[in-house]
Amino acid sequence: MTGKENHDHLAWTDLSRERVYETPIFDLYRIRRRAASGREGTFVVIDSPDWANVVAVVRDDAGRDCFLMVRQYRQGGRCLTLEFPGGLVDPGESPETAAARELREETGYEADRLVTAGWINPNPAFMGNRCTTFIGLGLRKTAKQKLDDDEIVDCELVPVEDLEREMGTGIHTHAIMVAALFFYRRWKEAGSPGG
Amino acid sequence: MTGKENHDHLAWTDLSRERVYETPIFDLYRIRRRAASGREGTFVVIDSPDWANVVAVVRDDAGRDCFLMVRQYRQGGRCLTLEFPGGLVDPGESPETAAARELREETGYEADRLVTAGWINPNPAFMGNRCTTFIGLGLRKTAKQKLDDDEIVDCELVPVEDLEREMGTGIHTHAIMVAALFFYRRWKEAGSPGG
Repeated sequence: MTGKENHDHLAWTDLSRERVYETPIFDLYRIRRRAASGREGTFVVIDSPDWANVVAVVRDDAGRDCFLMVRQYRQGGRCLTLEFPGGLVDPGESPETAAARELREETGYEADRLVTAGWINPNPAFMGNRCTTFIGLGLRKTAKQKLDDDEIVDCELVPVEDLEREMGTGIHTHAIMVAALFFYRRWKEAGSPGG
Repeated sequence: MTGKENHDHLAWTDLSRERVYETPIFDLYRIRRRAASGREGTFVVIDSPDWANVVAVVRDDAGRDCFLMVRQYRQGGRCLTLEFPGGLVDPGESPETAAARELREETGYEADRLVTAGWINPNPAFMGNRCTTFIGLGLRKTAKQKLDDDEIVDCELVPVEDLEREMGTGIHTHAIMVAALFFYRRWKEAGSPGG
């Protein structure tokens, strides 16, 4: 058990860095690093663009508050997921612009404005990018979906109370969506600043 | 906007699968798949063992309820993180056994029993594994840390109220820890079943 204020003994410094594999969504690097103790190690790191997503609540025909979500097949999980709209931040794009673009492309909705709710690193053990979650305010349907080539996505309205209850079970087990809902709850508990 | 009950049009089926890179913590695959529409695509998928972690609350010398956490340098984020103890599930090991082992190795603590709190997929977009979160009950210090070669980890007690307030900010921006805290809150709100 330690309560050390100085954490320098935990740090590693770069010795060399080699890109070993490229993919359309991330590159893989082998990095040689030295610990403060002098010990050296080789680590594999995924270099990915940042991501952004939008938690947006709209009223359905029955008058219920619903999250605007997208249902799609996920190639890693080999399963269908229900996710908040989002995706990769393009080069030169801000996370907010990317979030608004993904919202528009995946759902056909636009928000009057986006409020930053929080950000996470998907997994600092081997990733360095951020996913920023925005709250979408003043939602309105302005267009049809406009998807990328490999995107086959259904837009669905999920009652807020249903997702609050089911998050972390069944189809709602995407870590980044759990974090997005966590940030939405915090924003609500804080009195919906900017809302 | 759809409320389709049948989601077959979203599914993809495997055509071919090739392992293109191996690492100590995951392997990288290129997978060719065909959509229900007949469209074909190539996708990169990370094949990783499952993970497990433990949310454990102990009393500190000041009598405060504290999360048992580990501070370490993370090679992907190039940053220090404070995380719940956890790690990879070894071949043939159950998530619960792995969680108990990681708790013991990283902190020197053992739990009288572990209660399953929930699980997530870190990122179904390109990963297929699960991280299961357990609640550790009846904690006691039984040994010293016993770390892997490349593990340099400090065990720390983080007051519950501090983490509840700071999760999603600064050093507490690890998506999987946000999900673990989400599961801990749900377990508490449900009356700590099994506790």
